Amino acid sequence: MKKIINEPKDSIEEMLTGIVKSYPELVHRIGDSRVIAKNTTAKQVGLVSGGGSGHEPAHAGFVGNGMLSAAVLGDVFTSPTPDQIEIAINEANQGEGVLLIVKNYTGDILNFEMAKDLAEMNDIPVEIVVVDDDIAVEDSTYTAGKRGVAGTVLVHKILGANAKNGASLNELKALGDRVVSSTKTIGVALKAATVPEVGKPGFSLAEDEIEFGVGIHGEPGYRREKLQPSKSLAKELVGKLIHAYDQKPKKIGVLVNGMGGTPLMEQFIFINDVLNLLIEENIQVSFHKVGNYMTSIDMQGVSLTFIDLTDETWQKALSADVSTISW
Amino acid sequence: MKKIINEPKDSIEEMLTGIVKSYPELVHRIGDSRVIAKNTTAKQVGLVSGGGSGHEPAHAGFVGNGMLSAAVLGDVFTSPTPDQIEIAINEANQGEGVLLIVKNYTGDILNFEMAKDLAEMNDIPVEIVVVDDDIAVEDSTYTAGKRGVAGTVLVHKILGANAKNGASLNELKALGDRVVSSTKTIGVALKAATVPEVGKPGFSLAEDEIEFGVGIHGEPGYRREKLQPSKSLAKELVGKLIHAYDQKPKKIGVLVNGMGGTPLMEQFIFINDVLNLLIEENIQVSFHKVGNYMTSIDMQGVSLTFIDLTDETWQKALSADVSTISW
Repeated sequence: MKKIINEPKDSIEEMLTGIVKSYPELVHRIGDSRVIAKNTTAKQVGLVSGGGSGHEPAHAGFVGNGMLSAAVLGDVFTSPTPDQIEIAINEANQGEGVLLIVKNYTGDILNFEMAKDLAEMNDIPVEIVVVDDDIAVEDSTYTAGKRGVAGTVLVHKILGANAKNGASLNELKALGDRVVSSTKTIGVALKAATVPEVGKPGFSLAEDEIEFGVGIHGEPGYRREKLQPSKSLAKELVGKLIHAYDQKPKKIGVLVNGMGGTPLMEQFIFINDVLNLLIEENIQVSFHKVGNYMTSIDMQGVSLTFIDLTDETWQKALSADVSTISW
Repeated sequence: MKKIINEPKDSIEEMLTGIVKSYPELVHRIGDSRVIAKNTTAKQVGLVSGGGSGHEPAHAGFVGNGMLSAAVLGDVFTSPTPDQIEIAINEANQGEGVLLIVKNYTGDILNFEMAKDLAEMNDIPVEIVVVDDDIAVEDSTYTAGKRGVAGTVLVHKILGANAKNGASLNELKALGDRVVSSTKTIGVALKAATVPEVGKPGFSLAEDEIEFGVGIHGEPGYRREKLQPSKSLAKELVGKLIHAYDQKPKKIGVLVNGMGGTPLMEQFIFINDVLNLLIEENIQVSFHKVGNYMTSIDMQGVSLTFIDLTDETWQKALSADVSTISW
């Protein structure tokens, strides 16, 4: 394993410290917890997200005015514990309740629900939006149902803008569920990630082999094939995404997300192929984003997310100003 | 070679198209040239930068209001040609002259100077600021003198803010030279980049080996050693940087720059170690930035940049708002 780290067991603590020391104007840590919170407070519904580490900049990079109130970090690829989530809820609560945005993994669901129960005992109203945007497979290594992946970042952004504009907890819960059902993601991996405490790649692919549909923790996808041109990868993923909608959407947003080890050059070549295919499909693209947003440590590969943007207010929410490290 | 590309020879054209199609609200391409320009114009000195491709998001990602007027792209690790640079100058010129920000490589210097001559024949006043922030080695594979690397991005930002605020061409040239002489960078590589048209890594390191001082085109550094903890890497690089200043600076900005294949987790662990050392050194850090800004395609490694921020106006310029893809 070749990594710029110290003791593998100290990686999360040191990363967390690095994040808050680097952006003191935007975020701070709550005591010695695993919670990173925004510096500004306002009378609005609090938004909390989080999950295992290893997906940086998610989720701490999306904490800030107009997006998340707080993010809570677990160990690498491991859910944060209920007591840590509760700290984030307490911090995010400004008297209007707190919405939890949770990726659909069994451990996360369990722990965020437990934290919700704890908070409600203290009279903090809490709702949960579960993100399950990964259409690659049903039921995976750590999931019942579909996995939650890069589309989560778009959910953060749309709910963040609406929370800032005064939407109520119930309104945000309903909106979040609608956004999730309009957001679909699928990925392709060229090389697996290496978890620091494990020390070797989570799975292996031959030098000329790729895998469609791999999850952000290296969960198996749906097919292995020989390496192929970007255009062919785009065709496979665009086709699957369009097919996943009941009705072919007329206007969408597109997120190309690098998995951590894939350079921007490849991501821009890939989105060029995606956008060419969408012209052929007569689908209008009114929002684009390219970069590393929901990574899998140093995995090589990309994911492609579509969000139906028929609702003009979502488009506006995606384009609204924020003060975060990484949006 | 495992990359998400099509024909290697088409990579730059397809990447460029991908960039402008993805951010039509910020930038556009000038005809079928290799120039990406910002959409807004204002009566100010134009700022142009560029160089070989493969350093994404540099330089196109820094085009926009408050930073560069235009960026010109060469082939991978190859200077853009004078005619292409001239197109960028013509686009950037709003009647107040144009400043070229050029990394110190022989090919770039030659071509940007030639473009300056061409523009001056058309009565456009042009000045050049040469960035040579890499303190690792004197005279390298493609350089006489020191190389220009990640510190260039800070030069873009400080000059961009001042140009927007109405500084004259001569003022910007003088300021640029001062900023360059206050900016120092040094890097460490864990794994070489693979240029698409070459198909294999530019150099090779053993599984447990690193190289200090490697350039952003894979130019040799100054020492190979066994892989060591982030703390030791930080100690080596911080020591070299402090030593490169005539007087130890009291207040600095710190940029930790990922080389393309290094995940944010490692970058944040590394800056944590850097910041701890700077506390010991009694050096105040008043600006931080962490991420992939001046990459070497998929190289694994980081560079560390210090900028002396004794001048408070530079700090303000670094923190000023911009509208770019990647700052």
